[in-house]
This record gives sequence, structure tokens and C-alpha cells, in this order.
Amino acid sequence: MVCAALAREQGYSVLALTVDYNQRHRVELEAARRIASALADRHIVLPLDLRAFGGSALTSDESVPKDGVQPGIPVTYVPARNLIFLSLALGWGEAEGSRDLFIGVNALDYSGYPDCRPEFIEGFEALARLATKAGTEGREFTIHAPLQHMTKADIAREAQRLGLDAALSHSCYDPLPDGSHCGLCDACRLRAKGFAEAGITDPTRYAAVTDEA
Amino acid sequence: MVCAALAREQGYSVLALTVDYNQRHRVELEAARRIASALADRHIVLPLDLRAFGGSALTSDESVPKDGVQPGIPVTYVPARNLIFLSLALGWGEAEGSRDLFIGVNALDYSGYPDCRPEFIEGFEALARLATKAGTEGREFTIHAPLQHMTKADIAREAQRLGLDAALSHSCYDPLPDGSHCGLCDACRLRAKGFAEAGITDPTRYAAVTDEA
Repeated sequence: MVCAALAREQGYSVLALTVDYNQRHRVELEAARRIASALADRHIVLPLDLRAFGGSALTSDESVPKDGVQPGIPVTYVPARNLIFLSLALGWGEAEGSRDLFIGVNALDYSGYPDCRPEFIEGFEALARLATKAGTEGREFTIHAPLQHMTKADIAREAQRLGLDAALSHSCYDPLPDGSHCGLCDACRLRAKGFAEAGITDPTRYAAVTDEA
Repeated sequence: MVCAALAREQGYSVLALTVDYNQRHRVELEAARRIASALADRHIVLPLDLRAFGGSALTSDESVPKDGVQPGIPVTYVPARNLIFLSLALGWGEAEGSRDLFIGVNALDYSGYPDCRPEFIEGFEALARLATKAGTEGREFTIHAPLQHMTKADIAREAQRLGLDAALSHSCYDPLPDGSHCGLCDACRLRAKGFAEAGITDPTRYAAVTDEA
């Protein structure tokens, strides 16, 4: 949401891509629809069943860890997910004549996912040149990751500055049937910590509350 | 088909991935099923509607050129397609603990697609290291493109050497309702030329025949 709003603020029209990858936290698709209604010029929700591959707690029956953010890459890592997402965005972007792709990855307050790191984003930008007709013909793509070096507190502050309703967004990997955030998965802990550190009221409904991130 | 058979010959088990991208030549999905039955240990046909993006004669109502292979990248180029395909294969491969991905791209007798070139394949291999948990942890991926430097005649000869039934395979971008090859699109011309140059009987049913590639 913050990434899309920053793109708009910079004067871009926003073509929003949501991938329905049969994720455990399907409720984020509804959040994406709400956010796209508010911020995007167009929105595609693309079904792509990554549960066919599995290999992640988000796309299989494996449990989502609830015991706090641990060192290393957690089981909620979805194999090659951000590469798949950016590749799809590149395909749509090239078809539309776009030159700028935005992705809301964050490499500070995060779970250690390899495909959130700056070297991955830079590598993708270089490969986009080789992978596409546009790139081959000199119309290069820029991958923008404006949240990359922000803390979650910075992101919460940006949301406030941009006049965004944080309640529109969803972070939890393992939401309750009523759509509320579990409060204990990494995504919930990092989200809550961000609001707390920023001193901004957190509008999120958490089913459980913990003090440790 | 030849690429999969070469992987088997090298002793690999073959996990075959077919993407149903709502391509004009949907008949190739049936060919993929026949070939996977013959050569693969497992086969996933993954729906991914690239027609939502368009931007190609294969995923829109734009016509497929029939006037011979021309210089430049043709309108049958599908934006970022091989990057999307390889990213998906990487995701499945990582979930399975695979270390080797095979792709049947060809950079000699081809239509000039950017994502068939060796520099793209090499770039993807490097990015796979950055994009994945496995790569980050030192379990690197090798992208094999065994047909890359073969002519279509070489490929036809390989099919014969490997005892493959070339009639199982499908190349045409714009097949007739009965499933026969049009004979005039780039893919048909390059296919027919390959068999002719190899001096191998071409089992393909073409609706039209031309002497020029």
C-alpha cells in the first residue's frame, strides 16, 4: 500500500498486480482489492496456484511459526516467489509499454528472505534488460523498491504522512477465520513493532498480543 | 521433447512443467501431455493466464505472421515469457530439492527472441543464486539448455538418435481446428526446414507447404 502510494506521489499511474497464489492468507487478496481501489488506475488479480509446488508454510499444510522472529530463512519462504512476481510484473509492464516496476520489499525489519535483498533487486533489473524485447531495444526497466531501506516504523510513518488508512492493509501469514491478524507470526510481530516504534496507533485487530518481536 | 529426453539420457529424473498460458496454440498442451507420459517422472500443467496481459500475437487476437522469418523480434514474442517459465521451474525445483533446470531454447534456427539467447540463460542462472534460499545457502542451480547451439536439423537428428516419435511434438503457433500445423508461421517453417536439412522424413501434418524458411 505504501509502495503504491509512493509511486502515485511520484506521478506514476499505477497498474497493480496481485497474484492469487493460493496462499494460506487469502484474506490479503481482499486487502489488495481495497488498496487497488484507492490507489491504482488498473488492477489485475492473477490466479497462479503455487500450492501445486508447495515447499512453504504459506502454500502447504506446514505450520506457520509463532515463536518470534528467528535467525535464518523461515519456512514461510515461498520458493522463488518474488522472482516469479517480478517476472509477471515485467511481462505485464512490457506489454503496456511501462518502464518502471515498483515492489514493496523491505530488507531491514524482515524475516531474512533472500528475494527481499538489494542484490536480488539489482540482479533482476539487469536480467530484465536481457529477458525482454524492450530491454534488448534499449528501453530499459527500472525496479523501484522504495521501502527497501526503511524500518517498519519508517513505513508506518510514511503511511501516516501519505494519509493512508493502515487498516486497509493486511500482513498476517495465518489469519483467523474472521480475518483478524494472529498477532504471533513474524509478519504480525514486525507490523506491531513498527507501529509501536513509530508511536502511531495501530488499527490492526490482533487475536493475540506479544511484547517481543 | 528432445530436451527432456537428453535430460533422461544424462540420468536425471524429469519433473516436467507445462504452463497453460492461454496460448493461441493450446494444442501444444496435448502434445506436452503425450511427451510427459513418455519421458517424465512427474508432470504439472500450471494454468497462468498471460492473456490477461496480452502484448503478443500468441496471447491476443493479433495475427500470426505467415510471410516467412523476418529480421528482428516478431509479434509472436510473449513479454518476459521464458523468464516467467524459468522462475516457475525454479520455484518448483527448489521445493523439490532439484539443482538442475532444463529448458529447450534454441538460439540458432530461431525467431530472434531475446529470452532464447545464451546471455539470458547465463543471467538467469546467476540470479537464481540470489533469488532463492537454496542459492543463498550454497546449493546452486545449473540451467541446462542443451539445444541452444544446435540447428533445427541437429535437433531432428537428435530426436531420431534418441528413438523419439517426432509426431508427438507440436511447433505451430497457429494450428488449424483439426490440430494440424499451419505450415506458414515461423515455427512451422523452421521445423520443416530442420527435417529437410537433416534428410529425415517429417511426420508433421502441414496444412500448407512452402519452400522458403
